[in-house]
Parts: sequence; C-alpha cells; structure tokens
Amino acid sequence: MSKYHRPDTQTIQSLKDIANKLRIHSIEATNASNSGHPTSCCSAADIMSVLFFHTMRYTIKEPRHPNNDRFVLSKGHAAPILYAAWAEAGLFPASDLLELRKLSSDLEGHPTPRLNFVDVATGSLGQGLSCAAGMAYTGKYFDKADYRVYCLIGDGESAEGSIWEALAFASRYQLDNLVAIFDVNRLGQSEATSLGHDLDVYKARVEAFGWNTYVVDGHDVETLCKTLWEASQVSGRPTCILAKTYKGQGIPGVADVENWHGKPLGDKAESAIAAIKENMANTGPHKLIAQQPTLDLSPINTNVQLSTPPSYKLGETVATRLAYGTALVKLGKSNQRVIAMDGDTKNSTYAQKFKDAFPERFIECYIAEQNLVGVGIGCGTRDRTIPFISTFAAFFTRAFDQIRMGAISQTNANFVGSHAGVSIGEDGPSQMALEDIAMFRTIPGSTVFYPSDAVSTERAVELAANTKGVCFIRTSRPNVPVIYSNEEPFVVGKAKIVKSSSSDRVTVIGSCVTLYEALRAADTLAESGINIRVIDPFTIKPIDAATIIASAQETGGKIITVEDHYAEGGIGEAVAGAVSQQPNIIVKRLFVPEIPRSGKSEELMEKYGISAACIVKAVNNILSV
Amino acid sequence: MSKYHRPDTQTIQSLKDIANKLRIHSIEATNASNSGHPTSCCSAADIMSVLFFHTMRYTIKEPRHPNNDRFVLSKGHAAPILYAAWAEAGLFPASDLLELRKLSSDLEGHPTPRLNFVDVATGSLGQGLSCAAGMAYTGKYFDKADYRVYCLIGDGESAEGSIWEALAFASRYQLDNLVAIFDVNRLGQSEATSLGHDLDVYKARVEAFGWNTYVVDGHDVETLCKTLWEASQVSGRPTCILAKTYKGQGIPGVADVENWHGKPLGDKAESAIAAIKENMANTGPHKLIAQQPTLDLSPINTNVQLSTPPSYKLGETVATRLAYGTALVKLGKSNQRVIAMDGDTKNSTYAQKFKDAFPERFIECYIAEQNLVGVGIGCGTRDRTIPFISTFAAFFTRAFDQIRMGAISQTNANFVGSHAGVSIGEDGPSQMALEDIAMFRTIPGSTVFYPSDAVSTERAVELAANTKGVCFIRTSRPNVPVIYSNEEPFVVGKAKIVKSSSSDRVTVIGSCVTLYEALRAADTLAESGINIRVIDPFTIKPIDAATIIASAQETGGKIITVEDHYAEGGIGEAVAGAVSQQPNIIVKRLFVPEIPRSGKSEELMEKYGISAACIVKAVNNILSV
Repeated sequence: MSKYHRPDTQTIQSLKDIANKLRIHSIEATNASNSGHPTSCCSAADIMSVLFFHTMRYTIKEPRHPNNDRFVLSKGHAAPILYAAWAEAGLFPASDLLELRKLSSDLEGHPTPRLNFVDVATGSLGQGLSCAAGMAYTGKYFDKADYRVYCLIGDGESAEGSIWEALAFASRYQLDNLVAIFDVNRLGQSEATSLGHDLDVYKARVEAFGWNTYVVDGHDVETLCKTLWEASQVSGRPTCILAKTYKGQGIPGVADVENWHGKPLGDKAESAIAAIKENMANTGPHKLIAQQPTLDLSPINTNVQLSTPPSYKLGETVATRLAYGTALVKLGKSNQRVIAMDGDTKNSTYAQKFKDAFPERFIECYIAEQNLVGVGIGCGTRDRTIPFISTFAAFFTRAFDQIRMGAISQTNANFVGSHAGVSIGEDGPSQMALEDIAMFRTIPGSTVFYPSDAVSTERAVELAANTKGVCFIRTSRPNVPVIYSNEEPFVVGKAKIVKSSSSDRVTVIGSCVTLYEALRAADTLAESGINIRVIDPFTIKPIDAATIIASAQETGGKIITVEDHYAEGGIGEAVAGAVSQQPNIIVKRLFVPEIPRSGKSEELMEKYGISAACIVKAVNNILSV
Repeated sequence: MSKYHRPDTQTIQSLKDIANKLRIHSIEATNASNSGHPTSCCSAADIMSVLFFHTMRYTIKEPRHPNNDRFVLSKGHAAPILYAAWAEAGLFPASDLLELRKLSSDLEGHPTPRLNFVDVATGSLGQGLSCAAGMAYTGKYFDKADYRVYCLIGDGESAEGSIWEALAFASRYQLDNLVAIFDVNRLGQSEATSLGHDLDVYKARVEAFGWNTYVVDGHDVETLCKTLWEASQVSGRPTCILAKTYKGQGIPGVADVENWHGKPLGDKAESAIAAIKENMANTGPHKLIAQQPTLDLSPINTNVQLSTPPSYKLGETVATRLAYGTALVKLGKSNQRVIAMDGDTKNSTYAQKFKDAFPERFIECYIAEQNLVGVGIGCGTRDRTIPFISTFAAFFTRAFDQIRMGAISQTNANFVGSHAGVSIGEDGPSQMALEDIAMFRTIPGSTVFYPSDAVSTERAVELAANTKGVCFIRTSRPNVPVIYSNEEPFVVGKAKIVKSSSSDRVTVIGSCVTLYEALRAADTLAESGINIRVIDPFTIKPIDAATIIASAQETGGKIITVEDHYAEGGIGEAVAGAVSQQPNIIVKRLFVPEIPRSGKSEELMEKYGISAACIVKAVNNILSV
C-alpha cells in the first residue's frame, strides 16, 4: 500500500479557490442563459475541484484519450459546473461559458457527446452509474488498463432503481477502479428528498450493496483528496463517497433553502458572487494541472466481420435467435473487441453460444435490464468494445429511457431482442414483444433489422457491428426455413423481393414468421390463378421505400403488410409512411390487434389475423375493391 | 399485542399436504401443456399453502371483493401454483388446471386479470411489489380498511431496480399492511442468481431499506405461519420474509439442480409425484377454509366530472400543463376517489395544484418512475381509486414496461406527461418528449389525448377519468391561447376543424404548439390567396379518420401533418395509417427529424422544420406538385 501525501497548504487553498471559481462560473452562465441549475452546481463544486485538479489523470488536449480517467456526471443538470471545470482546466476559454444553452453552442442544458469531453449524455436521472460501471468493467477486464472511473450522482436520482442495479453489478464484479460520489445536498426539485441528510441510511444501503463506503463533508477539499486517494488503494470493491453537501453552498440566503431548484439567481447573482469571492484567497489564474494518464493501451482493431460466411442448406429450419448466437461467435473470432451481455436469458437468446466460446468477453447482467443497457453503452464508449446486448425483445421496454439516452450519447451499441410476437406461443403476452419495432424505430438514427432467416440474420449481426448509431435486431423463437443462399449479400435499407412474376396483382410485405405465411398464401392464391409479390424488407428502418413503391406500382398500387406486432409504429405504419406521398397506392395492414393470449404459435397467428389464410382473405378482399 | 396461537398439529399437517398437492398440480399442469415452470412453483409451494389456507382472509365466492386481502404473484412464471391454490380453495375444479396455457383457457402462461382472482398481470419481472405497495397505500390511507397485501417475489427478479424503488417507497410510507416474501431458491433462468443462498446479504439490503425483516426456512410451514402472524403485529414498517427455498423442492434429482428452469418434468413426472405423495399424510380432500375478511368499506362513488366547467377567456394564454392541474382539482372536488402522484416534478407538471388542494390524496413518489407507475396501477385496482400519474412525458419511457404490463393488467390509470417536444426550449433533448405519442399509441386499448388549449385539456382530464384502459394526456410547457369556448364539447376520437372555408386547398393537422403554427401559417397563406383547413385531432388515438378523410377529400386530397415529435409512431404515421386505404390522398409529414439541441423554443421549432414558416413552405410545395 502506497503512502498518502497530504497536499500542501497552497494546493489545498487553490482547490478551494477553484471550487469557488466553478461556483461563480455556474452562477454567471445560468444567469446569462436565464435558465439552468446553479444551486445544484454549487453543492458539487468542491468535489469537482478535487476530481479535476487533484485526483483525476487526463490529458487536456485529448479529453477522450483512451487512457484518461473517465468522469460521468450522472446528475446532468449540473452541466454548468462540468463545463466550468473543463474551461478552468484549459480546454476552452471561460468566456464560452456564457454561451450556455444557446442554439449556437454545444454547451447545452445537459451534457451530450457533442462536447469532446463527454462520453455519455445525462439528464434523465439515475443512468450515469450503469454507464460508468460499463467503463470500469471495460478498463479492468477488457482493456486491463489502469484508468479509473468517477461518477457523480445526485441524492435525488439515487431513488432510481437503476442506481441500485448498478451498485449491485459493480460490487458483483469487484470494480475497484470505480468511484461513485453521492452529492447528498438534501433537496430535490419539488421538495426535500426522501432521506434528506440521513447519511447513515445511505451508508447502510450502499454498504449492504457491497461497496467500500465513506461519509464525508462534501465541502472539505482536504478530506475529499484523502478519501479519493484511499479509494484508489482498495482492492476488490468499488468505493462510494457519500458527500454531505448543501444545495447552493456558498450563496447566502440560498444555500440549503427550498424552492431554488433550476432557478438562476437573477438579481441576487452579484451579491452571491461577491460573497463567494470573500472566501477566496486568490481570484486570479491558478497553477494546478491535472496528472497525466498512463499510456498502456494499444490501437484498436477496426475490422469486424463474420470469420466464415453463413453455412446453411436452403430449406433447413433454423430459428433466427439461434443464428444470432452463431453469427456472434464468428464476429468474436474476427475481432476481440466484440463483447456480449445478457440479462439471465442467454439460453433463450443464444448469447450463451458466445459465452461458451469467449467466456472472458461475456457479461452476465442478471435480471436488471436498465443496468444491462447502461453497462453496454458504457462498455462501448471511446470505441473500446463493440457491445451486443440481448434479452427478450419485450424486456427492452424496461430500458427505453436508457436506449433513448443512448442515442443522445451517440452510442453504437447493438441490441438483440428475441421472442418477438405471438409466435412465441404459450408464455403469453407479458413475454411477447409486440411494440419493440415501434420503440426502436423512434430512436433517432437507429437501424432496425428484422431478418427472416438464418443467412440474413448472420449478415444483420455483421452489419450491426459496422453501423453507427443504435442497431436493433429482432429475432424469433420458432424455427424457420433458410431461404437465402449463403452468398446472398445484404445491405441496410435494401429489401429483398422473395417472390415475383410479371402478373403479380398485390405486393405483400412480411418479415420472418409472417414472410413465410405470405409465401404460403402465395402458393394457395396461385392455385386460383392469383399471383402476388412477396417482399422481405430486411430493415424496417430505414425502410426500402424505392423498392416498395416500385413494386406497388407494378402490382396495381396494392400493398398488404403483415406483421407479428401491434399496428402502431410497426411495419404497416412504416410502409404507410413511406408511400404516403404516392397517390394511387393503398396499404392494407394486418397486425396483432389486441392483447393476445397463451396458445400455440399457429393458433395465435390465425386468431390474430396474420396467418396465411388471413393473407389469402386480405388479398381477395383488396382485389375485389 | 395479541397472542400467537400455534396452529394445531392437524392444521400443520394439512398445510404441508396442501403444499404438496400444489406441487403435484403444478407438475401435472405443466406436463399437460408441455411448457411452463414447475420447479419455480415447487420452491413456493409451502409459502402459497400457508398464505392461502392459513394467513389470508378472503371470500372465495368473490376473489376481488374489496375487503379481501390481496395477493400479488410478482414471479408470474409460477402461475400454475397460483391457479392450483385457487382451485384447491374451491374457486374452480382442479381438473381445469390441465387446461393450462391452452388457447381456450384463461389459465395462461402468466397470470392476467382475465382471471377473476388476479389484480395485476405479472410475468415481466420485478413489477409486482410496486403494484402491491399501491394497494397497501390505498388500504392504509385511502380506504382506511384492514385488508392486507402479500407479494411473492422471486430472488432472480429482486435484481430489478424497480424492486428497490418499491422497497424504499413502502418503508417511506410505513406500509405495515404490506408483506413481501422473497422466494430465495438460488437459481435463475440461465444460471445461479448473483447472490445465491446468501440470505445475510439479502437481509442487510432489505433492512437498510427500512423493512422489518425475517430470514426463514421457506419449506417450514409452521415457521411461515408464525412469521406471517408476527408481521401482522408490526406497526409502522412493512415486513419482508426472506424464505430460503430450493427450486424444484420435493422432486428427487431435480431439486436445487441447474438447467431445470421453465421445463416440464416429462417422463420424470410420475416418479416425482410418487415421491411427493410419500411425504403426504393425507392425499384426499382437505378441510382448511380461508378466514373471512372484515367488511369495512362503503360503496364507491362512480360520478367523476369537473366540479365547474372550464372558465377561460378566448385568447388568454395558458399552458396546457397548468390547465391539467386546474382540471384535476375540479375532478378531485367531485369525487374522492381521484388521486394524484408524481415523481418529484409536481411543480413542473402542476400536479402541485392537486397536492395543495387535497394533500391527503397526493403521493410523492420521488425520482423513481417505474415504481411511480406501478404504485399508480396498484392504487387503481378493484376501482378503489382513479389515479392520475404525472411526470415529464419523456420520463414515462423509464416505465414503458410497467405501462405495457398495465394494459395487460386492464388498468384504468391515467398518465399525464408534460414538457412535450422541442417547445420546452433550453433544457435540451434529454428532457424533451419526442417519442411519447409513439410509445402510448402502442399500448393496446389506449387513448392518447393531445389537447391544444386549456379548455380541451380540462375536458381531456375529465374524459380520461371516465375512459377505460390506459389514458395518456400530453401537455406542453409554453403558454398557448385559449381557442375553444368554455361550452365546447369534446369527445374521444372526434377531431375539431379549427379553421375552414369552401376554398381550402390543403388540410393541415397539428396539435397544441404546432396547431398554432398552422394557424399562423394559414394567416400568411391567406395573404397570398391560399386557404388551408386546420384540424386539431384532440385524440391521436383513436384518430378521427372520418373527419380527416372527409377533409382531405374536400382539399384536393392533400394533407400536411406537423408535430413536435419524431416521425415514427407520431401524428404523421397515425394519419398516414388512417388514410392508407384511400387512393388519391397524400400525406406530407413535418416532424422533428433528428436529436434536437438546446435553444429557444421558437428557434428550435424553426430549426427542426415545424414552424409556421416551414408549414407555409410545405403548403406551397404540395400545391406545386
């Protein structure tokens, strides 16, 4: 164990002075924008000063250098003090801080990676610690590097269950390179927090969750220096520092007073700043420079492809969820950065195959989907890994907020959801994803894959690994035939015309189980002399509007969509939207119209109107109009 | 404190025998359906026997009698043993159990309120305790009745953060009428749970969360009887019983063995049943009858309306979020069952107004949206209350899974989300709801209100209280003019034509902020002699297809939608879907096309293409085609 060196008196004073500078910047910036959260900044000022000017190791020229220590501001509404810290550290002029929240500035109301010193967007509360835990897991187990991860959490947001999922995760995996700091300033947005300043309760809870825990005065920079050093000496456990603070600390008449959340000081700013300056020894430039990181990482491998092409026989039946597992192992062989994680469903999603092949690159996240997603996003920051995150597709609804924030975080994480739709059968509606396409389609910049056979699934996995933004792959439970040759190329946004003739009278669009129903319907209809075109969209977003419109124009302007999903936001609406500016194209949509029941897969497809027989009927109807 | 009466030896033996009967039923039913989770049932059998045949008070003839004790099976995959318990209690013939998971039976894979003994659907894990806490809160504070609430939780699902949100909530509000029982059987789906049989860690965690806690042998019926009695004697704290159990308990070669999750016993069933029967003293009918409940409740008031009609001046500007608060107070005056809850945003959503008027009917749920929603759903069971649940609309994404399950639970809870879209301004994308309409539209049977002024907001609140299923009301931050007279009637699914003439050339559809942009665009266009029709849909689901189609037909088949929401699943796709079978109608959609930035409301509306100027341009474009 190394020995603690108490900072000299001058350093301590400088850290105090910097903390007060950060307070002043926060007050001035929020006053300039006439919005924002100065009091939430002031409680954290001393913590921020010590972290950025004493504890953390980073190169200021490259804030996202892979070797730098990481910092996650989970309480994202304290953004102004984060910006102030980087300005004081020398990344950009402090005068920029007055551009806070303006359309022309990247210094937004809450931090996003539009700023080169932000890894993950925050502002929806309670999400930062999962991301930080993902970074720490990556540092310890994948990068095997010595960078450390710090996460500042508000006491209000610690009511979020996702924080407790992350706390459980971090101790389970002994993330001793992770430090969580709770800024316990007692006051929430609309009233005091549930626990107020009862630090003993916080301590009991966090300790019970397996953390090395300290209760400290969050405005005592000397104690903070020492405690953060002690954290660095602990092995096998993450450290939590419960910092007792006051909201608006330093501002007379505002500190520790209710009804000051999210309010600039306005007229009070001048006297507040004067009072803060009275506490400063030196209001001029400081001389503290951050410690440099250890350069212990090699360049990353950017080649990510299937190690061998798909290898199936046409017509053999394989579940797309199984093909996912097969493909992921192949990707893992080609690139060591490919990792996988799951929420105790790996034997159903077939992430198990990846775990069997690369146990050291698989993370079991247990039944805690919010943390599962947050960890995945954290693991993917700075391109350290290429994460594949799997569970039942229905259970990604548990983490919609995390996925939404992931897009703002510019994550490239890949989501793979199995057990889509009524085709899962007897387990019933709680397990059936019937809104997952709608959910992932709303994510800006997302790509939504819905592969129909094993070959296209393998290519979807490969494409997802190479596609920027949130990718979602929807897989299914039943076995379905292989319809594409092993050499078939697949492209994001390009549909496949699976069946066509020169006399097609309707275009039918389906994916996976409903594509096969459509093909069966085509056979039945052909017996009565009616030919239909059948299209596999491959990606639902982007949807291949050109192919769909061209096909519709060749089939009398008639389209039928059929999907194992609810009506709203699914394939039918994607298609209706894509053709909405085309006169003379009509779209009839078949979908699951109500909460389904338990039953056999085929029974349910029939009952809810998405079977071959239902398609035959719909085709006959649309032709009779 | 009353004295504990140890059950007589015969009763203890009967409880043991019933537990084993429940095991046998679970094995037989899952074997008959060739799917399901018999081992997850067997770990809970003794707990279920004691609860249903010793501890709980209920009238078997009316399982949802308001005075009955409540039971929530949070680990919903153990459904067969719940069904078996009710069959053994005499609700229906045990032979029905063999219909498990068949399309013709309501005995589904996971419990839903299609069964008259289920209050909330379970099966997406970790949600039951929030609902149970809502029931207990209602019993203690609203009904002031003596019914008690029991919730059985799996150890695997206790990794869900929502469980910890609920634990914090229940102790915060001293729900001493609530008992949580953790069935700690050590094994998850794909591997052992994170904590295995480490009951000490469970105890430390749950105690730190403020519960009266016991660790017991979950297969010892006598201990269970006593511990459940002790729980009933505790005042001011909820009780948690951490029951150490074995998955598959009673089945030789299967108990406590991995890889038996979700698998019927098949060939092993016969020998398993024989082994279980060896442990039974009496395999014939038992004589235990549940205790009767106390009848301490009065009939409910079903009249729910605004106590006074809206009272605004045309043209005055009022934020719809503020009108929500006003309306809710009026509803609260007319009916005592109206309650409200919020996640520490009540000063922004204006739920604060309700709290000020009726503090005893408001529940502060702090920053824990999953529990907020679960509690609301729980409060609404058996029609005890009419819950209004509010937070920023964006943060309902945090609880999508709970809302999805709420629909399966047949909840009538009402959700009110403020701060819709880019019109909130400087706070930035993390706070802007841009996918909330898409999310709530996917909910089966939901009603999605998007009122445009204060008058229609008040009516939306009144209608929501009287509409079955999930209702969502989207409110906005900026002040907007009142455009409807106080007498204007509003109906679900009926749009308002806000501006029309006989020479309209395009139909423009917008809501709230974009409706006003459309009206401004209409004024500009009128100057150059172009008249447009402007429609306020009022509800986005159901969308008023008839009015929209009729209007489009009168305006050259041209529709423009404009919404402060992403493209997917919003107003544009709802309209495109509604007219998709109409040839000769085209729909041009304006929406927020990417992740927005911080900025002023008007700047953002302009930048993202949904301002009056953008509408003018779109109208000119569509007319030039």
